[in-house]
Amino acid sequence: MPVPGPGYSITVRVEAPPSAGAAGDLTSAVGRVGGVITAFDVVESHTDRVVVDITCNAMSANHARDISDTLGALPGVEVRKVSDRTFLMHLGGKIEVTAKVALRNRDDLSRAYTPGVARVCTAIAENPDDARRLTIKRNTVAVVTDGSAVLGLGNIGPAAALPVMEGKAALFKKFGSVDAWPVCLDTQDTEEIIRTVELIAPVYGGINLEDIAAPRCFEIEARLREKLDIPVFHDDQHGTAICVVAALRNALRVVGKDLSDCKVVVCGVGAAGSAIIRLLLQRHTGDKLGPADILAVDVDGIVHGARGDTDANLRWVATNTNRDGVSGRLHDALVGADVFIGVSAPNLFGAEQVATMAPDPVVFALANPDPEIDPLEAQRHAAVVATGRSDYPNQINNVLAFPGVFRGLLDAQAHTITDEMLLAAADAIADVVDGERLNASFIVPSVFDAAVAPAVADAVRKAATATA
Amino acid sequence: MPVPGPGYSITVRVEAPPSAGAAGDLTSAVGRVGGVITAFDVVESHTDRVVVDITCNAMSANHARDISDTLGALPGVEVRKVSDRTFLMHLGGKIEVTAKVALRNRDDLSRAYTPGVARVCTAIAENPDDARRLTIKRNTVAVVTDGSAVLGLGNIGPAAALPVMEGKAALFKKFGSVDAWPVCLDTQDTEEIIRTVELIAPVYGGINLEDIAAPRCFEIEARLREKLDIPVFHDDQHGTAICVVAALRNALRVVGKDLSDCKVVVCGVGAAGSAIIRLLLQRHTGDKLGPADILAVDVDGIVHGARGDTDANLRWVATNTNRDGVSGRLHDALVGADVFIGVSAPNLFGAEQVATMAPDPVVFALANPDPEIDPLEAQRHAAVVATGRSDYPNQINNVLAFPGVFRGLLDAQAHTITDEMLLAAADAIADVVDGERLNASFIVPSVFDAAVAPAVADAVRKAATATA
Repeated sequence: MPVPGPGYSITVRVEAPPSAGAAGDLTSAVGRVGGVITAFDVVESHTDRVVVDITCNAMSANHARDISDTLGALPGVEVRKVSDRTFLMHLGGKIEVTAKVALRNRDDLSRAYTPGVARVCTAIAENPDDARRLTIKRNTVAVVTDGSAVLGLGNIGPAAALPVMEGKAALFKKFGSVDAWPVCLDTQDTEEIIRTVELIAPVYGGINLEDIAAPRCFEIEARLREKLDIPVFHDDQHGTAICVVAALRNALRVVGKDLSDCKVVVCGVGAAGSAIIRLLLQRHTGDKLGPADILAVDVDGIVHGARGDTDANLRWVATNTNRDGVSGRLHDALVGADVFIGVSAPNLFGAEQVATMAPDPVVFALANPDPEIDPLEAQRHAAVVATGRSDYPNQINNVLAFPGVFRGLLDAQAHTITDEMLLAAADAIADVVDGERLNASFIVPSVFDAAVAPAVADAVRKAATATA
Repeated sequence: MPVPGPGYSITVRVEAPPSAGAAGDLTSAVGRVGGVITAFDVVESHTDRVVVDITCNAMSANHARDISDTLGALPGVEVRKVSDRTFLMHLGGKIEVTAKVALRNRDDLSRAYTPGVARVCTAIAENPDDARRLTIKRNTVAVVTDGSAVLGLGNIGPAAALPVMEGKAALFKKFGSVDAWPVCLDTQDTEEIIRTVELIAPVYGGINLEDIAAPRCFEIEARLREKLDIPVFHDDQHGTAICVVAALRNALRVVGKDLSDCKVVVCGVGAAGSAIIRLLLQRHTGDKLGPADILAVDVDGIVHGARGDTDANLRWVATNTNRDGVSGRLHDALVGADVFIGVSAPNLFGAEQVATMAPDPVVFALANPDPEIDPLEAQRHAAVVATGRSDYPNQINNVLAFPGVFRGLLDAQAHTITDEMLLAAADAIADVVDGERLNASFIVPSVFDAAVAPAVADAVRKAATATA
């Protein structure tokens, strides 16, 4: 059940009688239909009427309409205008390109542009590495999508994906001081996407792939990593995996378990699920151990070798998980499991299935906007619950990872990105929550915690420098 | 002969004796080797020595080295550091991406990013035209190059071209409030360039092609105009043509001639020369008349039908110029000509050839950095002289055109660009110079004249609206 939130915030301008009771009638009408008033401003006041802006959070677009209809039905009240605060914020786009240099007079122009710029061009032509010193390449990342798997909206295409990419770019700047630019491609052909990113790469110090559907995203990422001399990161895979591994480390500290003793169920084997599995298994190759076993589950049930999957990604998952080759459905997988990680679909199980898990189970129900299990249901038997939502404790949000990851990569002038860097980022996020603050409702820091991005950047930069 | 300019400005930090004469020795040493001091700052002062920053304009990189060597050779003087002010200005690039929306708290995040952004995406998916209202597409232009014809530097490739594209983006913002983004493509294949621009187009409200070599640029521009529903402008062609037509209109007012009576020589038939010819001929189709005749000249001499050129552009030029089918060299073409427009190579003729032109000739010697004729030579016989240089009167600079042109196109939400819009832009630039200010040394406004871009934008917007 959704709750009223600022994502559906409207301002309703109404004309009402000036009587003392009218204001009360307005606010109680909003409350009666479930709206939450956040501001009440008198815009005009006359002897015969007042004009009031009522700003309130709604649950949905329909609910917002209900609220304004309810206000309009009050005696003597007329709705003049309904403004949607989210749409107002997006008008004309959310980012802009600004000059870092002054262009006040001819001297400035001579240095920033012709003739002075020619010497800078010549320096780069003679020594291509100078592009990282003398151009925006030093601090700039492309946010690349084909619009095929945008949020929970699916394949809405490149133009409709742009508001998300702009938002991402704004977050890159806010949290990582990274200049990020949206690249929304009008093709969903794997070869064309790869070639286009290769051709636009000279301007960028890194590539952030975003909201590209599986399994295409795997090949695009792998091939671009081979072709380009700048790091390629797929946020839906690697960003999510970093945050999940960070949260899991702290969750297991809360329940006092070692990952190497845990049976982990990963539900959803698309971009995010596969990347989580890969990063958990990487713990084997580092100084820490990975899980005792992983069971991967998709719409066809538990993934195992005998299922005959033909998709390369699923074949890899079948080979690297499910040691005992068990089969069955999600409910079977959950029995005796220590950890559930869902990156799949809403409402797949309930409290009764959590009760079948091992003692003190950890449940990460990350499907957005509606989790695999209602978090309040999960809390009845789980020791730690996390979701992707901002209205429950333990929000696992990629904003914790990507700004710091690219800040670190750019600072190190990294040419590649490795699993060691991803694990370093995960540990850095986990470590921001110190022992005194750690508890079942606080396993990851807030996205607004200013310590996160610098800590991640530092860890990634060190790991990148060690690799180079 | 180059003159010291701010494009080669250095700051030399020296340690010198504290005697009264030392400062004089330093400044006179710089003057002796031809440097021009623009600032003299004492950074540290001690009883036994002073540390001084001497900032001066030089003529070239070698000249800058001569200056610092000369200073270091003075008795008791030691050069500590030489900073190149142009390179300092370019460090880390000249533009950045900034957020237009606040991201202070969770409410902001909910509106700018998930979950609120999903509604904005859905609105665009349902009505693609909304992308021009709800995203950066409304105000954003791609500055696209393949790095094949950059300034006078030639084919230096996409990475080395980036400083120019960044400078262009800074100018777009400063003069037109347009958000422009550099797209430097790592290919010089015509088909790949066309396809890539097509694929990245969803983010942009217009395409500015830049520094792409002829004849490839003609096909790229023509094909993209067919494929895209946003205007495609090639600055080297159309920007230059607008500025030349504007300057020519005012130059002919100064000498009291009608274009329709004039014989015009256009030297150089690459991107700029062809576009100038096309726009001059467009005067025929409007309410004003084009030139009586045009002679186009390239390295093989006067272009005429019998020359057997195979290039499509040259064949078009041969068909549409040179009514009498004359042949010969540049010097032959100049005899009796009213107007010379050069967009070609340095030092092609002298005062003696200008003397053979018609009375009160107009000479636009626009080759950069060294014009077709030394402007001081040209002035001996020409009534009006213009160049592309900032150190002579009448600088013809594309900065006069492109910011206002795209401001107007974006404001009109134009889907195409037409010759009528280019001519409207040219007339707007010419009209900024009113009758009282017009004279042989002032046929175009300064690039810093704040009236230019709004006038151009207004003219283009009106022409675009009339077309739609």
